[in-house]
Amino acid sequence: MTVMSQMPNWLSARSKLSADRLALTNGQQTWSFGQLDRYVSQLATRMFHMGVRAGQRIAVLAESNMKIVAIIHALIQLGAVLVPVNPRLSSEDTNTILLDADPWLVIGTLPRETPFSRSITPEVLWHDLEQEPLYRSQPINLSDIQCLMYTSGTTGRPKGALISYGNIYYSAVSSAIHNGTTSSDLWLHVMPLFHIGGLSILFRSVITGNGIVLLPRFDPEHIQDTWSRYPVSLVSLVPTMLFRLLKSSLNFPASLRLILLGGAPPSASFVRQARAARLPVVLTYGLTETSSQIATQLLQDKESDTSAGHPIYPTEIAILSENGIICEPGKTGEIVVKGPTVFKGYWKQPQKTQEIFWEGWLRTGDVGHLNDNGSITVIDRQKDLIIRGGENISPVEIERVFTAHPLISDAGVLPINDEEWGQVPVIILVTDPQLTRQQCSEWANAHLSSIKRPVAYYHADSLPRTASGKLRRTELLKIWQSGAYYELL
Amino acid sequence: MTVMSQMPNWLSARSKLSADRLALTNGQQTWSFGQLDRYVSQLATRMFHMGVRAGQRIAVLAESNMKIVAIIHALIQLGAVLVPVNPRLSSEDTNTILLDADPWLVIGTLPRETPFSRSITPEVLWHDLEQEPLYRSQPINLSDIQCLMYTSGTTGRPKGALISYGNIYYSAVSSAIHNGTTSSDLWLHVMPLFHIGGLSILFRSVITGNGIVLLPRFDPEHIQDTWSRYPVSLVSLVPTMLFRLLKSSLNFPASLRLILLGGAPPSASFVRQARAARLPVVLTYGLTETSSQIATQLLQDKESDTSAGHPIYPTEIAILSENGIICEPGKTGEIVVKGPTVFKGYWKQPQKTQEIFWEGWLRTGDVGHLNDNGSITVIDRQKDLIIRGGENISPVEIERVFTAHPLISDAGVLPINDEEWGQVPVIILVTDPQLTRQQCSEWANAHLSSIKRPVAYYHADSLPRTASGKLRRTELLKIWQSGAYYELL
Repeated sequence: MTVMSQMPNWLSARSKLSADRLALTNGQQTWSFGQLDRYVSQLATRMFHMGVRAGQRIAVLAESNMKIVAIIHALIQLGAVLVPVNPRLSSEDTNTILLDADPWLVIGTLPRETPFSRSITPEVLWHDLEQEPLYRSQPINLSDIQCLMYTSGTTGRPKGALISYGNIYYSAVSSAIHNGTTSSDLWLHVMPLFHIGGLSILFRSVITGNGIVLLPRFDPEHIQDTWSRYPVSLVSLVPTMLFRLLKSSLNFPASLRLILLGGAPPSASFVRQARAARLPVVLTYGLTETSSQIATQLLQDKESDTSAGHPIYPTEIAILSENGIICEPGKTGEIVVKGPTVFKGYWKQPQKTQEIFWEGWLRTGDVGHLNDNGSITVIDRQKDLIIRGGENISPVEIERVFTAHPLISDAGVLPINDEEWGQVPVIILVTDPQLTRQQCSEWANAHLSSIKRPVAYYHADSLPRTASGKLRRTELLKIWQSGAYYELL
Repeated sequence: MTVMSQMPNWLSARSKLSADRLALTNGQQTWSFGQLDRYVSQLATRMFHMGVRAGQRIAVLAESNMKIVAIIHALIQLGAVLVPVNPRLSSEDTNTILLDADPWLVIGTLPRETPFSRSITPEVLWHDLEQEPLYRSQPINLSDIQCLMYTSGTTGRPKGALISYGNIYYSAVSSAIHNGTTSSDLWLHVMPLFHIGGLSILFRSVITGNGIVLLPRFDPEHIQDTWSRYPVSLVSLVPTMLFRLLKSSLNFPASLRLILLGGAPPSASFVRQARAARLPVVLTYGLTETSSQIATQLLQDKESDTSAGHPIYPTEIAILSENGIICEPGKTGEIVVKGPTVFKGYWKQPQKTQEIFWEGWLRTGDVGHLNDNGSITVIDRQKDLIIRGGENISPVEIERVFTAHPLISDAGVLPINDEEWGQVPVIILVTDPQLTRQQCSEWANAHLSSIKRPVAYYHADSLPRTASGKLRRTELLKIWQSGAYYELL
């Protein structure tokens, strides 16, 4: 008897089925699924000899390159748990994540000051990779954890989301059926591999059999070149990326049948602009905790410029009122989600895990309403969260960094709308009057990843707080909008 | 925390997502997914009041009509186990299956002589179905049994294959990705609902969101009419059906993008003929025990006229030699299968269940070889099995019926090639010389379902048997081919 939750290894099965088909290219180098599988088996063999075993957490500083993609698949062959880390985080942020994840090995270059010693660079791991691939891939257990992915949330302390093989598999097949993806598709990949939106494209590729063109970073010129050389049919973008593509007057190729626009809610006028340019844009909505897509527009449905489309079957979406009741369509409340892509909980945070579930539903923290046709409209992403070019930023985290400065007694961060980035953070500081913008900026450079650094610094004599000391953000925004705070020079 | 193996109810999720889209039509009546879901909830409520509960086996004499389809979905809402029964079986065959399955309720008209009393016709179940649908559909547990489906095998005693919700789900999504099925497809359904090939089309429809045109039986004229009225894009046929369609000079519609040809291996010349007529024919291969498709040709691969195509990802196929070794491509042996669509075992037959598995692989009993491109060629279906127009017939079962006749001392059944049906059974009898063809035919009519009745009766003085009494079928065929047996008149 076979065990229900087992499945043949995805890449091995794919390489038998589509050995000679394009799996991955970066424009210079190209691997078929057969070649990818061979490299992955060799890497898995090497890592096995190094001591990597099933269940161990292995952190990967996830640059978008082919070597890293093969390493990620090799960890699946071994049954190890991938911990993808943004390689451009500050040393402090990197260490915070590594301390929480406690990986057995770090693949990538560690920050200079770090308590971790067991690390190896992808280049060394790949060096002279000619050995016999002795390691035979094991079946996949859908209930095993594939990935521990960090998401900032609003409270500042990063939370590690536990994502299972089942989550990944169901997300991939549901997305394929929703978007009509087949092995004939070619997916342009410009999203970071350390986010669920980018990582999941890798697994969809082996499960659906479609190829990937992987670019190391978002670069309109490089994209134009790619489009002239490959019949790209799908691309995932955050609104900031599409904004730049439209600004740079690119020729979008005729082969492109879907632009999946997610990561942050774009403005309706921007979506209209893109559609006026006859781009096949569909809005999509998802979280790390749902292993990517929850809902995506269907092109043929000519959905509105603001809806996030219909749920990815069989995911269910409902709206929870403040009184704890599931609402009728049209009523606004918290978006809650049920289905096989909902994650397994937060690593080492049972309290947070318990809080995010309500009677079997995942609480997204996002506000929206269901439409009569079953589609969902997301009105507001998670309370207080700042989304800058698709990256989630916690205001609390930035505030903490600044209140640690000897000349700063209080700090409040606000999201300001920005045409290109969607939102950017500004900070209002209660400071010694001598503090300069230059000093604040140096402090930010020293302690914050670049994406989290405020774009402007303001001075205030005091910040509006509740009796219990909680920052009144709506009030803070109003005062800021009234011009009562002056900008540091 | 959600439980891994749970999933929102398929039809409920689909009806939220595609409430107004066509779910099912028979050409006269049409239901959207919303309407289907409403009827199904009403039926589930009624059956719940009758005492139907999760886990109970409910036999359904499965005529191909819309009422039966709704009843099948209602059993899923209730978590009851569907036992689909061919409504055209002889009383004896029906009772044999019912005695083995021991259902709590039979939906359909029972044979006159039957030990079963708890039955209800679909018409009564549907009568005045206006009640409030109080029964709320439960989540689906993928490890639960959805269906107990009888398959004849070669030994005569019918075996009940236990098929789980997971089997069905994985089969549906794997098939959708392999064939590129989307919610825009429309599937012409002319296959029996009591076979896995026909039943699985219902579940694919709710999981993928494609509509179904359901015809009560195979009828070329009705099909021509359907094709003129609906943009049918997919159809599953057994070779006998396609043979008849080609003979009746139908106009195949331009909307038709795939003809899935399965159930029995067609001759290469027949496939060539169909392809010469520019029909989008793909060969497909599957078993009840694999919840339908194991492999299917890909149209774009221009696969050979004899290969059964590539495995349905992530199903794995291998060839097992007589020495119990997995063979290289090109070597012929028994086809073995691994993957999430492999069934859970035989009902009440642990020995048979154990025998059909070898080191985690399902033994199909079919003979074939893998090709260099990863596709599979099926050389011979299960030893001794006769496949007549896609229906599996056991020679042993027919022989048993005839040796029970007072004037017959021995009997041997042979499969004879037939242009239209693929194979038909003939029988060689050791009889009293006075026995006539008429008497044999009456005996068959009284004791065998029509599909199992021999097309010709031959007389022999004795049959070739081994020392232990086993019929030497190859020898029997040789003698028959030499013309040594004479036909009864």
